[in-house]
Amino acid sequence: MKKLNVLLYRNLGEHDLRQIANEFPDIAFTMCATPEKAAPLLPETDVVFGNIPAALLPGAGRLRWLQIVSTGIDEYVSLGNSGIVVTTAHGIHARIIAEHLLMSVLWFARGMPFFRQAQAESRWERNPAIPSLLERNTIGLVGCGAIAREFLRVIEPFKANIIAADINTSVTPPGVSEVMPPSEISRLLSLSDHVLVMLPLTPDTRNILGARQLEAVKQGACLHNVARGGLVDEAKLLELLKARRIAGAAIDVFENEPLPKDHPFWGMDNVLVTPHIAGHSRELGSLVLDRFKTNLRRFIKGEEVSPIANFARGY
Amino acid sequence: MKKLNVLLYRNLGEHDLRQIANEFPDIAFTMCATPEKAAPLLPETDVVFGNIPAALLPGAGRLRWLQIVSTGIDEYVSLGNSGIVVTTAHGIHARIIAEHLLMSVLWFARGMPFFRQAQAESRWERNPAIPSLLERNTIGLVGCGAIAREFLRVIEPFKANIIAADINTSVTPPGVSEVMPPSEISRLLSLSDHVLVMLPLTPDTRNILGARQLEAVKQGACLHNVARGGLVDEAKLLELLKARRIAGAAIDVFENEPLPKDHPFWGMDNVLVTPHIAGHSRELGSLVLDRFKTNLRRFIKGEEVSPIANFARGY
Repeated sequence: MKKLNVLLYRNLGEHDLRQIANEFPDIAFTMCATPEKAAPLLPETDVVFGNIPAALLPGAGRLRWLQIVSTGIDEYVSLGNSGIVVTTAHGIHARIIAEHLLMSVLWFARGMPFFRQAQAESRWERNPAIPSLLERNTIGLVGCGAIAREFLRVIEPFKANIIAADINTSVTPPGVSEVMPPSEISRLLSLSDHVLVMLPLTPDTRNILGARQLEAVKQGACLHNVARGGLVDEAKLLELLKARRIAGAAIDVFENEPLPKDHPFWGMDNVLVTPHIAGHSRELGSLVLDRFKTNLRRFIKGEEVSPIANFARGY
Repeated sequence: MKKLNVLLYRNLGEHDLRQIANEFPDIAFTMCATPEKAAPLLPETDVVFGNIPAALLPGAGRLRWLQIVSTGIDEYVSLGNSGIVVTTAHGIHARIIAEHLLMSVLWFARGMPFFRQAQAESRWERNPAIPSLLERNTIGLVGCGAIAREFLRVIEPFKANIIAADINTSVTPPGVSEVMPPSEISRLLSLSDHVLVMLPLTPDTRNILGARQLEAVKQGACLHNVARGGLVDEAKLLELLKARRIAGAAIDVFENEPLPKDHPFWGMDNVLVTPHIAGHSRELGSLVLDRFKTNLRRFIKGEEVSPIANFARGY
C-alpha cells in the first residue's frame, strides 16, 4: 500500500513531530512552512495541515484534504467546487477572540488612549473624559455566531445592553435584547457605543459596513473588527476616525495584510492595530493540532472529518 | 437659628448646584476647589464635601463632618481622634475599579505591550509570545473586600484560578480557591500570574509587598495596583520590572502623587501608568453627590451619616 503523504505547513516542535510520527507510522510527514519549500512537494501531497497559500494549490493535483488553522475560508474559496475537502478551526478561536474583544472594549471604555498618550509625555492629568460604565453602554454585535456566544459569556457580568445583526433573526440568544436583519445595520450602528464585527467574509457580507452604513454610526462610538478587513469600508472608517466621529477602533484585520508600512492606521492614537492575532494564544497551536490529529484518525479509517467548510456560509 | 456653612470642595455643575441649593434652603453652600480659596473659609465651615487637603484641616475649628469622595482615608488619619466625623465613598468605586482591573489584566494577558510597541514602529509581527488564556492563569488578590467582590463577579466567566490574602481567612468567597493570611503573601506571589493589590493603607499594611516579599514573585507575573502606592516597595518593583522578572505592571497609585516627571515608570514599555483614576468614570460625580445628599439629609435631622471611616481598618 502506498504511503499517505502529509504536508505539515506549520512550525511544530520536536515533541509534537515525534508524537505524531509515532502515532501514525504508516504516514509520511514532511514539515515545511514556506511557499518555496512547499511548492515542489505539493504534486505528491495527499493531505495538508496548515494555511498554505491558496496560490500554490493549483499545483496540488493529488490533494484530497486540507485542514486549515483558521475559521474564515475566504482565502480558499477557489476550492469550493474542487472536490478537495477543507476542514476549519471553527469554534477553536472563539473563546480566545472573546478575551481579545473584551480587552479592547474595556481599553476604550476606560479612556486608555488618553492615558497612554499622557504617559508618553510623562503627564499626570486626572480629568479626562472617562467614558461610562459598560452598564450604561449599548454594544452592537455584527454577526451572532460562535464568537458572539463566547463574547456574551464574558460580557454578561457587566450588564451592558447588547443588540445584534444576523441573517438568522429567529433566535435571540440570552443576554441579547434584539436581533435585527443585516438590512438594519445602519440602525444598529446608530445605537451602539461599541460595534463588534464578527462575521464571515462572503460575497454577501463584503463591505457590509460600507460608507453609507458607517455614516449612521453614533457619535463617539468605538469599532472593533476581529473578522475580516473586507467587511468594512476602510477609507470611510479612516475618515470618521480622523474626524473623531468614531472615537476609537481596535482593528485586527485589514483589507490588505500585512497592513502596509505607510498606512495611516499605524500612527493614530485612537487606533489599536494588531496583526490578525485576536484568535491567537499560547494554547492555539496544541488546540489546532489536536483537531488535525482527531480528523487524521478519522480520515485514514475513511470516516468523515469535521467541521467541513461551507463556502456559501463562509466558514 | 444660625445657618449651617457647607464648603463644597468639588467642581459641581450649575444644574447640581441649583438643585442642592433648592433642596436645602437653610444651608449656606460655598463652592471652591482650590486650597488658596478654601483656607480662609474653613474657620467658619461646619461641613466639607470633597477631598480637601488634610494640611488645611487644623484651620477648620468648627468642622463637624467631612464627606470625602475616596474610599481610602490614609490622608486623613490625623482626624482619627478629632471628634470630626469622616464619611467615605466606600463601595462606590469598587464596581468601576473592577472594570479597570479586568482591562489591565486582559491587556497583559493578550500580550498588548508587544503589539503597542510594534504599532509605534509600523511593524506587522505575528509571532510574539501571547500569554495563555486566563483559564490557565492564577490570579492572586491581595485584599479580599469590596473591590475583590466586584472583581470576582467580572472574572467569573474566564474560569481562572483565584487565590487571595486577607486578614479575614474565615470566609472563602465563591470563586476563590484559597484565602491565606497576610503572613503568606510570599506564597501568593510565587503562585500568581497576575497579582492585584486592593488593600487599604494602614500602619499594618504599609509595605506589605516589600522587597523581601517581592523576591518571591513568579517569573513573568504581572502586578496591578489600584489601592495605594505605599503598599508596594516601588524601588524593588522597578528593579524586577527592568529585569523582566515581573513582565508588566499596571500602576494607578504611587508612593508620591503626582508621579514625578522624571520617574522611570513613565517611560517603561511594560508599565501602564494611570493617574489614580481606576475608580473614576463619568458616573462617579453623581454617585458621590448622591451619597453626600443622602448623608446631608440625615445630618440636619441629627441622624447618623454613613459609612463612617474606621481609622484602624483604613476605610
